[in-house]
Amino acid sequence: MARCQKQGTKIELLEAGMKFMQEKGYTNSGLQQVLDAVGVPKGSFYHYFESKEDFALQIIQHYDCNYTEEVLGCLRDQRHTPLERMRNYCLAGREKIQKGSCTGGCLIGNLSQEMASQSERLRQKLDEVFIRWRDLFASCIAEGQQCGQIDRRFGSEELAELFLSGWEGAVLRAKSTRSIRPLDNFIKLVFTFMAGAGVELSEINSGAGIAAAFEVVEAGPLPQV
Amino acid sequence: MARCQKQGTKIELLEAGMKFMQEKGYTNSGLQQVLDAVGVPKGSFYHYFESKEDFALQIIQHYDCNYTEEVLGCLRDQRHTPLERMRNYCLAGREKIQKGSCTGGCLIGNLSQEMASQSERLRQKLDEVFIRWRDLFASCIAEGQQCGQIDRRFGSEELAELFLSGWEGAVLRAKSTRSIRPLDNFIKLVFTFMAGAGVELSEINSGAGIAAAFEVVEAGPLPQV
Repeated sequence: MARCQKQGTKIELLEAGMKFMQEKGYTNSGLQQVLDAVGVPKGSFYHYFESKEDFALQIIQHYDCNYTEEVLGCLRDQRHTPLERMRNYCLAGREKIQKGSCTGGCLIGNLSQEMASQSERLRQKLDEVFIRWRDLFASCIAEGQQCGQIDRRFGSEELAELFLSGWEGAVLRAKSTRSIRPLDNFIKLVFTFMAGAGVELSEINSGAGIAAAFEVVEAGPLPQV
Repeated sequence: MARCQKQGTKIELLEAGMKFMQEKGYTNSGLQQVLDAVGVPKGSFYHYFESKEDFALQIIQHYDCNYTEEVLGCLRDQRHTPLERMRNYCLAGREKIQKGSCTGGCLIGNLSQEMASQSERLRQKLDEVFIRWRDLFASCIAEGQQCGQIDRRFGSEELAELFLSGWEGAVLRAKSTRSIRPLDNFIKLVFTFMAGAGVELSEINSGAGIAAAFEVVEAGPLPQV
């Protein structure tokens, strides 16, 4: 993937639109608010984008590009083992969500939930991004299976799909319960499951490959009514 | 929980509003559309509901009541083992989603994604519903742990939170990829994980307690770009 663009009016519009759409969704984000935030006239907007839908498509592309550079990059970092890389992905995501006080969630998840049945063009674009992310997880998981770190009873793509959808669900729950506990719960359980059959919790906590994933998980109750 | 109300103008308004909000979200659902669909004047609406937010709160309550009666009830059905009950829950949900061509998703998940950071009252109500559902799963999982059907390495509430958020994530992916494959993948993997360490895939497929969960999972690839 080409390096993400960082400068120019178009990028300013994409960045502002991304922020609004992440916080308020597609429908609640008015173009005028975006124009006001960047300080450009409507004519400039239509120089770069055909429509609000086209704007959203390019925002998704821009978000994906940045997310791949900043967060998903750790999945290819050969200084770490495959499970460590998966854990680093979770910890980076967890940090981003904690910084935003669990309010923003994942732009791709948010727009899927809101727009998948409203716009076929957006749905296809969002699905394309999810599948690309899943394939990055699958490569890392396949490496982990080859070196015996990850359970081989399932295909790497199946585990990757579960990892992706499970993470998206945990992010959604973090947003609805305004706490990172669902993310910590996901990390704790899914890494144990991925490590495979026969792993005892005591082993995991006392120095097996995924012990570090547990460092972030403090004992404490899940949210209650 | 009291039996859900089934008749009257208020229920007609709630049913119509629920349908719009499930398909189009909160912001995209206009009150006038709901009034037109039911054929009542605006005055009647404000007789029953203080505001659109209040309307949404009561729609969530109504959805929860119906969902508990129609779908979550199977978790308490003592004719089946705990794992069978969890499976029946998934199959009932899967059928509902397939009937809707994977477009609607879960109203509670949809509204959480869209509104959790827009309305604190809605967020609290949605979280309350999720926690109640999680507690229903947790009771069933605890029973399964007592009779040795479900892995005891984790607390029933932790497994229930993973089950809930994982299912919501799989529903979101089903919506974005317009296919039930992510649900089948969730069922296949999570039931194996819940059954615990040491379960071989061949055992599971050949007659262990969760074999039936696999009946719905045909061999086939996950969605690709």
